[in-house]
Amino acid sequence: MPIVNADIDSTAVIRFPDLVNIYGCRIGAETSVGPFVEIQQDAEIGARCKIQSHAFICSGVAIEDGVFVGHGVMFVNDRYPRAVNDDGVPERAGEWKLEKTRVCRGATLGSNATIMCGVTVGAGALVGAGAVVTKDVPPDCVAVGVPAQIIAENCAERRRQSRGQDC
Amino acid sequence: MPIVNADIDSTAVIRFPDLVNIYGCRIGAETSVGPFVEIQQDAEIGARCKIQSHAFICSGVAIEDGVFVGHGVMFVNDRYPRAVNDDGVPERAGEWKLEKTRVCRGATLGSNATIMCGVTVGAGALVGAGAVVTKDVPPDCVAVGVPAQIIAENCAERRRQSRGQDC
Amino acid sequence: MPIVNADIDSTAVIRFPDLVNIYGCRIGAETSVGPFVEIQQDAEIGARCKIQSHAFICSGVAIEDGVFVGHGVMFVNDRYPRAVNDDGVPERAGEWKLEKTRVCRGATLGSNATIMCGVTVGAGALVGAGAVVTKDVPPDCVAVGVPAQIIAENCAERRRQSRGQDC
Repeated sequence: MPIVNADIDSTAVIRFPDLVNIYGCRIGAETSVGPFVEIQQDAEIGARCKIQSHAFICSGVAIEDGVFVGHGVMFVNDRYPRAVNDDGVPERAGEWKLEKTRVCRGATLGSNATIMCGVTVGAGALVGAGAVVTKDVPPDCVAVGVPAQIIAENCAERRRQSRGQDC
Repeated sequence: MPIVNADIDSTAVIRFPDLVNIYGCRIGAETSVGPFVEIQQDAEIGARCKIQSHAFICSGVAIEDGVFVGHGVMFVNDRYPRAVNDDGVPERAGEWKLEKTRVCRGATLGSNATIMCGVTVGAGALVGAGAVVTKDVPPDCVAVGVPAQIIAENCAERRRQSRGQDC
Repeated sequence: MPIVNADIDSTAVIRFPDLVNIYGCRIGAETSVGPFVEIQQDAEIGARCKIQSHAFICSGVAIEDGVFVGHGVMFVNDRYPRAVNDDGVPERAGEWKLEKTRVCRGATLGSNATIMCGVTVGAGALVGAGAVVTKDVPPDCVAVGVPAQIIAENCAERRRQSRGQDC
């Protein structure tokens, strides 16, 4: 049963319900979710988002309305994950520390980007494809690279220029 | 129905037809496609390619004969993707600009590489694992890193040396 | 049949047997494997490991006990992969050179990390999310970036401090 106990708006579209692992999360109106996506317990996804194929969204992540999560984007919620504790037994709840992440409305996370825990990606910001975000990205900024660096502060204007539209 | 309206040569091998999302594309003779792969509308893939698991190949991408697409390789076709337009409604066709990408014959894209839109990877070139390609890679060159930089111009010779073969 | 000829301990947990491609490998006691994972022929995975979603583990990789393999981690076993040989026909066994990789006990590979072939990740080491490992990582070290660089030599101590525990 790849979709379990999730609060999914009736207008959201999970394109391939047999090819996802979605449980215990919330997904808002008109949001679309592609194949090969895992969304964990307590993740919150707003309305009119696009969650592209191969994305992984973990517990502790909040995604506001109108966010684009590119193909293969991976979130993190534990700065020091491990399989076993110092005694060599599987780590248990309470033995690790969840750090929350927020992606604000209208932001875009490029394909194959990795979002470290404890950061905020501001409204309308663009994280470049393949970037590794290790600190906050301010609103409307463009951040690329490993670790991600801000290369522009006017994402919306750049987008319009790129598309040959008036600014 | 994970394979829809695709023009797939009868000698191509889709190893796990239930574990892919392939639609509206062309796939040539003797090409193999692994599991967890998405190939979009209008993508063109030549003959004798290897498309490894977890790859994502989008509209606007043309892959010539004999190309190796490593595990987790992601292509991009929109420099400024987003979920919603300035009015907050889902972006529609015509509101974004597709930039085409070409991978020439015999090239190799290493695992987890990200290929930005609007580039050409030359014949026989090698893109290193985990690289982010943001500009053209000339034929027979080796490009690695984020953003990808050319580190060698003789990929075929290096391959032969690596394998202990005569040059 | 997505699980074929694998030697999987009876206490290991493959959470979604229909959403993996696992063949000819060994998986030890109490190890868990998430969805969208491919594990190839002859790969060896120890006990009490966590293999997270979207990971790819290839032939030639040995993973010791208690290792955390993050979401989207990709291994490599051929430094110069290609689809076809110089004659343009699909490359055959014997025409390429496998380079082995080892991940030692208690190590962690962060999400979206890429592990080049021929390296050893030492016991208790941490490879950061999105890193590309191209050379050995010593035990208990933290390596991040592309290519991965050592940024700390006391991973266990840092983990304890991060979690507010006594050192």
